[in-house]
Amino acid sequence: MFKAMAQCLKELIFLFFLAIFSKAAEGLKPYSRATVAPDAVNNNYCLSWRLAAEANNLRGWRTVPAQCMHYIEAYMMGGQYERDLDFITEQILSYVSEVVLSGDGMDAWILDVDDTCISNIFYYKKKRYGCEPYDPAGFKAWALKGRCPAIPAVLGLFQVLIESGFKVFLVTGRDQETLAQSTISNLHNQGFIGYDRLILRTASYEGQSAVAYKSDIRKQLVGEGYRIWGNVGDQWSDLEGEFSGNRTFKLPNPMYFVP
Amino acid sequence: MFKAMAQCLKELIFLFFLAIFSKAAEGLKPYSRATVAPDAVNNNYCLSWRLAAEANNLRGWRTVPAQCMHYIEAYMMGGQYERDLDFITEQILSYVSEVVLSGDGMDAWILDVDDTCISNIFYYKKKRYGCEPYDPAGFKAWALKGRCPAIPAVLGLFQVLIESGFKVFLVTGRDQETLAQSTISNLHNQGFIGYDRLILRTASYEGQSAVAYKSDIRKQLVGEGYRIWGNVGDQWSDLEGEFSGNRTFKLPNPMYFVP
Repeated sequence: MFKAMAQCLKELIFLFFLAIFSKAAEGLKPYSRATVAPDAVNNNYCLSWRLAAEANNLRGWRTVPAQCMHYIEAYMMGGQYERDLDFITEQILSYVSEVVLSGDGMDAWILDVDDTCISNIFYYKKKRYGCEPYDPAGFKAWALKGRCPAIPAVLGLFQVLIESGFKVFLVTGRDQETLAQSTISNLHNQGFIGYDRLILRTASYEGQSAVAYKSDIRKQLVGEGYRIWGNVGDQWSDLEGEFSGNRTFKLPNPMYFVP
Repeated sequence: MFKAMAQCLKELIFLFFLAIFSKAAEGLKPYSRATVAPDAVNNNYCLSWRLAAEANNLRGWRTVPAQCMHYIEAYMMGGQYERDLDFITEQILSYVSEVVLSGDGMDAWILDVDDTCISNIFYYKKKRYGCEPYDPAGFKAWALKGRCPAIPAVLGLFQVLIESGFKVFLVTGRDQETLAQSTISNLHNQGFIGYDRLILRTASYEGQSAVAYKSDIRKQLVGEGYRIWGNVGDQWSDLEGEFSGNRTFKLPNPMYFVP
């Protein structure tokens, strides 16, 4: 109880400084005042919005509601996002510890890449944490840099999976032709070493939904004889569809929605 | 921003009074001090726990973590639960408004009963908001009273569905033999009037998981020619499995898990 009060006070102080910072920042960024009035921020509404998104009650949303920009900023940068990731990876590790591997090398695990293994938070910070619509050219330019930092909790999970003997498949909607090299390099420079395959989207899957594309990839893996024990992604479209895996885990991501 | 600060202050005041109340209540309830120390309350942890539960990352949990009792109490009684329900039903109504009904009387909608149509919050309040394990006899005695209040947001949705021409099926895991009469009466006294069928669990489904039982009921409805446009429940087991419906909606419920 008293901890909760102390936490609330801490949040109050954080929000106070965020308010001062935002006021200062508004002078620099002409769009801030125009599109996100400080008094439009509504923590309760944005908490409901975020919960609905994470529970898969919202579909096809294109941008974060403008009045939630500061809320999402506070969520992503204030520590709760990391705490949520840590909590979920603890659950995953608990499940992993219960899996009895067959030893035939066919026990598989699937991880998404963007905002699962490596983070795009610095890119989305410039897109007002998802309040701006998806910008394919901008994202491609960012991804080509190969500078996404690892998500520490997922890197830890990845290492446990490798050490436990799982075959880890990284399945991403990133375009094979243009982004394969920078993605391989980025994963390597962040410590994702020892995975079985990185599977990127080839031209034959162009225009298909993530659910259709990723289901087909998983179908092929199951066809090769792999048992998919787990499947982790920040998008419901990583986890829905066929051959989704024995257990699926949804990591938080309130910044964008991939159909 | 300032609204968020005001809200945080409001929450601080709420938590302050909750702390005073809890201190007073501890004198009356000998278990409080023993099992939930006030300083064990951890809002951040409990928010991560709740998010993980709502996003279907936790499976088979039997009780709310003891340190989250006050957090869950504040969530359920402090307004955010209602706000979350209101937000999700707005999303559902938006989807409902887009459905073009065929007019042949075969457009169907499925609603769960407990903590979807009618609320068990007063029962679970006595079970420390889910910190105590499921008590079948206690719950049966409560359900026999037929005094669960309607969840206002879902009653509003129900009325729109009926007026729009959907055939509404209420599908519940409650036992047909012992609870049919009190459930029918309870739904009626709370305004759930005009549904097509209330389907309770018959002896033939005894011991089956909710997913298996509810999937089989939906399969029968689809077999009768119904198109399931929507399916709303507070448990993932209401929404998983076969014939789940064109859209599913997960209502919040951090108090218990039905496998």
